Amino acid sequence: MDMINRLKEDLIETGQMGRTLPRRIERYGQLDPQKGVTRPTGTEANRKIRDYAVECMKEVGLEVKIDKVGNIFGRKEGSKTNKGTVMCGSHLDSVINGGMFDGALGVFGAIEAIRRINHEGFQNERPLEVVVFTAEEGSAFRQTLLGSSVLTGKTKPEEALSMKNDKGVTLEEALGNIGYKGDFGRSLDDVEYMVEMHVEQGPVLHREKIPIGIVEKISGVAWLIATILGQENHAGTTPMKIRKDALVAASDIISFISKRANEMVVKLGTSTVGTVGKLNVFPNGTNIVPGKVEMGIDIRDVVPQNMESLKNETLKAMKDIEKSYGVDISTELPPMHMPASLSDEVVNTIDNSARQVGVMTRRMNSGAAHDSQNMAESIKTGMIFVPSINGISHGPLEWTNWEDIENGLKVLNQVLKNLSRIAEE
Amino acid sequence: MDMINRLKEDLIETGQMGRTLPRRIERYGQLDPQKGVTRPTGTEANRKIRDYAVECMKEVGLEVKIDKVGNIFGRKEGSKTNKGTVMCGSHLDSVINGGMFDGALGVFGAIEAIRRINHEGFQNERPLEVVVFTAEEGSAFRQTLLGSSVLTGKTKPEEALSMKNDKGVTLEEALGNIGYKGDFGRSLDDVEYMVEMHVEQGPVLHREKIPIGIVEKISGVAWLIATILGQENHAGTTPMKIRKDALVAASDIISFISKRANEMVVKLGTSTVGTVGKLNVFPNGTNIVPGKVEMGIDIRDVVPQNMESLKNETLKAMKDIEKSYGVDISTELPPMHMPASLSDEVVNTIDNSARQVGVMTRRMNSGAAHDSQNMAESIKTGMIFVPSINGISHGPLEWTNWEDIENGLKVLNQVLKNLSRIAEE
Repeated sequence: MDMINRLKEDLIETGQMGRTLPRRIERYGQLDPQKGVTRPTGTEANRKIRDYAVECMKEVGLEVKIDKVGNIFGRKEGSKTNKGTVMCGSHLDSVINGGMFDGALGVFGAIEAIRRINHEGFQNERPLEVVVFTAEEGSAFRQTLLGSSVLTGKTKPEEALSMKNDKGVTLEEALGNIGYKGDFGRSLDDVEYMVEMHVEQGPVLHREKIPIGIVEKISGVAWLIATILGQENHAGTTPMKIRKDALVAASDIISFISKRANEMVVKLGTSTVGTVGKLNVFPNGTNIVPGKVEMGIDIRDVVPQNMESLKNETLKAMKDIEKSYGVDISTELPPMHMPASLSDEVVNTIDNSARQVGVMTRRMNSGAAHDSQNMAESIKTGMIFVPSINGISHGPLEWTNWEDIENGLKVLNQVLKNLSRIAEE
Repeated sequence: MDMINRLKEDLIETGQMGRTLPRRIERYGQLDPQKGVTRPTGTEANRKIRDYAVECMKEVGLEVKIDKVGNIFGRKEGSKTNKGTVMCGSHLDSVINGGMFDGALGVFGAIEAIRRINHEGFQNERPLEVVVFTAEEGSAFRQTLLGSSVLTGKTKPEEALSMKNDKGVTLEEALGNIGYKGDFGRSLDDVEYMVEMHVEQGPVLHREKIPIGIVEKISGVAWLIATILGQENHAGTTPMKIRKDALVAASDIISFISKRANEMVVKLGTSTVGTVGKLNVFPNGTNIVPGKVEMGIDIRDVVPQNMESLKNETLKAMKDIEKSYGVDISTELPPMHMPASLSDEVVNTIDNSARQVGVMTRRMNSGAAHDSQNMAESIKTGMIFVPSINGISHGPLEWTNWEDIENGLKVLNQVLKNLSRIAEE
């Protein structure tokens, strides 16, 4: 358990960045249910944790480069080839009021795995490269998985750089402000593998007391941004029958999505989830009939048809709601992230590596989106999950026990060693 | 139409205060549906319009005093008595993104009526007193009709002064910041009458093309502030069946209130209205299951039992919703404003005055709350309504035609003259 100490230090140290709690959090019992970490891309807290990670990378001897959209790469050359790189990493941005392990574990875990490889004197034949993806969460800029979308060529750098956050600041300006607007032109032509360690963010491993999850499929994500325009008016003098109340219309949409997703799970046995996570009311005064509502809808499934189906039924329900309430609903559909199947070869390597270090595993799917699902479209990709206590994530009570983190790291270290060897033909 | 010009100037001038539109608005067609006036108590815009009104009061020879909660009084003594005062006025604070006539018309109309009385050389036997009530709207501090509640003894000054706005600033500090923390101890012992001119804020006069409404009853208002606590979690990994989604629970409450109020109107013939005007979601990220929702509910009727009934049914529905979704709902009930019947004597005086100046009227109820409903509990009170185009108010498109304002002013001027005479015993 000695080797875990440095990673634990890194996670505790960075777990204070973007959090209002003025103390080091080392145990589950110290979490404040109101005070999570807030590090959207371009914030001061985001700069801090990026700087911290870059320092760590340099310390373990990695050569650090930043690309146009702020993705960070830290490279250790291989002894036999400068091609067929093994990438390993995750992201450092967070949702608003989120947890300290989501993303950070995958970055500092990758750095720690290389620290151990150095310490063990292990010679990697392929290059190893730690990667930090920009704007995974969509908490500052609307599109999630933004950095990996650019790296894999799904989104053009110029398009990403001109996206604006809620304050009207472009990604280009936001990256400039924190010193992470680089010019490294990374392609994936010389990359063979990608491995990401992450907290499960769901209840399965915790409930079944299994330390490691090996991900086979990742749910796709469809976002639907809707704006409902009604008629703002006085709450006392506007008779019920002549109202065009944007919030009453919105509440029908919220109910529809929740009921329909539940129905799909119960009646059709799908793993569909549908959520209205974001809702803003205008002008938002108790005595004013709401004239406008903006809402952010999140739909996921590992089967593309199920996502499509819930999305289309929601759009159809909106048409009916427009008629019923005399409101206008406009929608935006940010690019959908399709469900991904991870590489059998990497899945098997993780399985074998876990057996080598004596840690129990289970195969599973991921309900959460990860940059790995973009990477899986271009290169052989795998993911290692560690348990989340009570399945909680994207909230202040997100926690993973230190022994589970050590187990994850043992496996990751072994996976990197196994993948970094060039197989005899 | 000459005499209207000064009032029109005052309303156009003050109609720019607290609005982001950088121009004078003189006609309906110039209104921007996005950009209303925002002058909650204690804001810089609220200070500006108060200063402007105080200047106008001094200009027409009124002696100005400020009480402990920032109510402004401008007095013109009577020739025969210093008792049996006739008060006339309204408020200068606004909702967020509201209209330029709501409140301001009643204040600058009262000042203009006295300007005309001076100009005509009319000698008032009773004192006339213009009044500006603090915090009518509840847009900064939660309780509506705050200034008149203190003046009529329903709320203690210390209690009002310690109330906090959304930024945690007390009324006392807010008034201090804008220079309206006075020490005048006004009682109503020497006051006989209250008259308030106001825009209707509903569609009746505009639809029926009648220039003046004489208010007989004012709806009561019950507010219900609810906080729903669920379980914040990851939108992708939390299966539908184990969620405690605070926003899904809130949407059931919104639907319930709207459906039930509609039902009461249609089936029972009541004039009930029920609105969820304010709703805040936490943490408000598209990919996070909402853990907390705060909502502001507004219930009104001219019959107290109907208000009570909708309020109690809503509280009961919340109990069921708590069970269905496994959420906790806590509620706050700010003091309820009871429905008020205005004074027959003042209603008749308005009727006679309108006939004297040749303007058509109609008797009606007010769905909006007004400081006059507090005043009606202590002294003889009446209200004069002028038409609101399309019934719109509490929004940027609130408008009243200038000829309707002139008609209202003619009536108000005559009412003040009639009330200010001491009847022969």
